[in-house]
Amino acid sequence: MILIKNIKYIDVEESIVKGPSDILIDGNRVKKIADNIEQAGAYVIDGADKLLMPGLFNTHNHVAMSVFRNYADDMELMDWLQNKIWPLESKLTAEDIYWASLLTFIELVKTGTTAFNDMYMFCERVFDAASEIGMRGLIARGMTNDAFNKEREANIRDMYEKYHQKDGLLRLAIAPHAIYTTGLDYLKSCIDLAKELDLIIHTHASETLTEVNNSYKEYRKSPIKIFKELGMFDQKTILAHCVHLSEEDMDIIAKNNALVSLNVSSNMKLASGIPDIKNMFVRGDKLSIGTDGASSNNMQNMFTEMRAVSLAAKARSLDPKVMSAGEVLKLATINPYKYIFDEDVNISEGSLADLILINLDNTNLKPQNNLISAMVYSMNGSEVDTTIINGKIIMENKKIKGIDEDLVVRKVEEIIKNI
Amino acid sequence: MILIKNIKYIDVEESIVKGPSDILIDGNRVKKIADNIEQAGAYVIDGADKLLMPGLFNTHNHVAMSVFRNYADDMELMDWLQNKIWPLESKLTAEDIYWASLLTFIELVKTGTTAFNDMYMFCERVFDAASEIGMRGLIARGMTNDAFNKEREANIRDMYEKYHQKDGLLRLAIAPHAIYTTGLDYLKSCIDLAKELDLIIHTHASETLTEVNNSYKEYRKSPIKIFKELGMFDQKTILAHCVHLSEEDMDIIAKNNALVSLNVSSNMKLASGIPDIKNMFVRGDKLSIGTDGASSNNMQNMFTEMRAVSLAAKARSLDPKVMSAGEVLKLATINPYKYIFDEDVNISEGSLADLILINLDNTNLKPQNNLISAMVYSMNGSEVDTTIINGKIIMENKKIKGIDEDLVVRKVEEIIKNI
Repeated sequence: MILIKNIKYIDVEESIVKGPSDILIDGNRVKKIADNIEQAGAYVIDGADKLLMPGLFNTHNHVAMSVFRNYADDMELMDWLQNKIWPLESKLTAEDIYWASLLTFIELVKTGTTAFNDMYMFCERVFDAASEIGMRGLIARGMTNDAFNKEREANIRDMYEKYHQKDGLLRLAIAPHAIYTTGLDYLKSCIDLAKELDLIIHTHASETLTEVNNSYKEYRKSPIKIFKELGMFDQKTILAHCVHLSEEDMDIIAKNNALVSLNVSSNMKLASGIPDIKNMFVRGDKLSIGTDGASSNNMQNMFTEMRAVSLAAKARSLDPKVMSAGEVLKLATINPYKYIFDEDVNISEGSLADLILINLDNTNLKPQNNLISAMVYSMNGSEVDTTIINGKIIMENKKIKGIDEDLVVRKVEEIIKNI
Repeated sequence: MILIKNIKYIDVEESIVKGPSDILIDGNRVKKIADNIEQAGAYVIDGADKLLMPGLFNTHNHVAMSVFRNYADDMELMDWLQNKIWPLESKLTAEDIYWASLLTFIELVKTGTTAFNDMYMFCERVFDAASEIGMRGLIARGMTNDAFNKEREANIRDMYEKYHQKDGLLRLAIAPHAIYTTGLDYLKSCIDLAKELDLIIHTHASETLTEVNNSYKEYRKSPIKIFKELGMFDQKTILAHCVHLSEEDMDIIAKNNALVSLNVSSNMKLASGIPDIKNMFVRGDKLSIGTDGASSNNMQNMFTEMRAVSLAAKARSLDPKVMSAGEVLKLATINPYKYIFDEDVNISEGSLADLILINLDNTNLKPQNNLISAMVYSMNGSEVDTTIINGKIIMENKKIKGIDEDLVVRKVEEIIKNI
């Protein structure tokens, strides 16, 4: 058991700061919130000058792309992919994926992210890396229509047997990469596989204007409409990007079984545009936040990304009231936990113990006029002190337990040097 | 003398990383860059796993507004100003300004900013606070057309005698607040005063569409054109914001004696819009970067702001090649140092020793594929280890010398509680 004494905490649902109280964590749940809890044998954390909040859920990522961080920037998307990223990606081994995934998980945990949604390759080793850290997450092979389809499907069935529900924290998902890399038939077979195994679907959706224009040219429909017609939303679906949506697309998402992952920094950096967050939000709160991979972001910092989402929403809509700090916190925490894992992570008795402690003794958080605003607008991420996932302390005093960070860094440096 | 051993450093002018070399600082200059410098009596800093770069220049700020950080967010600009900020501002004392300025200077130094440009009030105490820290900067009273004009002019002449060129680092500037708060006659008298005392002018310019529309309505001209016609650009002028410029405005700025301060985060947060950075940049490199005050940003972190400028420029122009990392570094360092202080801060023998050391032993900067990209796209600001201003170590190992940070925080907390 973990007992956090005298701690202020954010009720994200109500958008208020509560406490200071004592909070007792038993197993993977918040068991009790009260004044002066005594619990023999509990591991005690002093909450003075700290703030507790739910952990952040990064809902779109290519975790192992940390290896390409700052490798190629300020380029056209297709030039970047075709001439820089794809040639190197094809050389990555399963072992490379393991180390590069560890590097990202370290950065995620250090900046307060407790759950992730990955789409990449050699997923077995992503499961291994996530398990070693103790992360919660969804892991999927990015599926494109090529010669390895049969092999890949067999691999997914094999992973489903061996890895799905690993540690109770990690799940397999099905990730058709995007309409422009799957085509209709293969996309349909991915959806069928997701239905058969009852897995969540994760795909890129309407990231660029080119993608959407080509979809209209080839199919006379938007990607979102195609997804709907192919039955994608019969399964839970995470739609990454959604930068270029029609009003009809937004209506479809609002009325169907889908969660949008906003990836604002990546979209801005790749000059894809800024999503119409205000008009998605007014249709109902089906939004969440992701960083995208470190090769396009180039951070894995959800605090940076929360700020980016709020600022981008306000700038695009010219409405400063859109995406208030309290609303953004929901997107980064309780929304995706509820949708993806059917879990309540809002701090209350019985809630899931995926939690982070912020050290408030940082001048950039002073004066403490409003801690909810501070979490979204003033954090750089380095103020995260302790990260708890599933009731287990993964990081304390900024030190991740059981991980040799220097070794991980050395391994990833070797990969990019030798590739 | 300071001797930094075995250090990699950024040549911002050439956009390349040089070294590792030894760098000797003598007085306020880089004296020598070579292998294996020996210098008896020099204070030695080990440069292993660190990166040296010029200090960052924050070219638009209201330094003491740190007291209002996270005090009121997600509001319409005029509602925010009239109902939240202005009523409280009117109660601030000179002593309050001193402590709140210190709080901002602490955050600036910690995140690698060595020079600032302030527009606020009780400037004597801003000079005092800056001097106590050891900052370089421009300080000005925000001037609006009200009953205190005569008094204010007398105060400026007095400050000019007592504070201008204080420590050789701090200069007085003349800051007509904005066209909509000065009107033409008073603006002209501010310009005349700047000419008489030969001071730099600092003003808000075309921040919101309302401001620009009202200017056309009242004067049939844009703010920039009015500035030009009133002779503002006879003096060096720093134009903050420039979100809503016509092509003609951009031409005027390009052909005249002016430096734009981009304040992208503040503009986005207040939903003023995103400046057309690409079209300003192609006319000639007259750009720099500022955070604006902590009440609208809500950070004082120039690393966050460099990233914001690049991403905003790319997103607005839909051109990912605009504002590359190397170009952004120029905006934040050598451009404003050259324009405002006639100083060369690009690291070379004879350059001004306003320098920062980055601790590269941070997982978010790994792998080290490109350190120039990393400085703009992957930094959260907490990686700054050492800040040197005018050849003097202001911060070392993240500790600012001679400043009681806890006392400063306590004082600012008291101000906002008691106001």
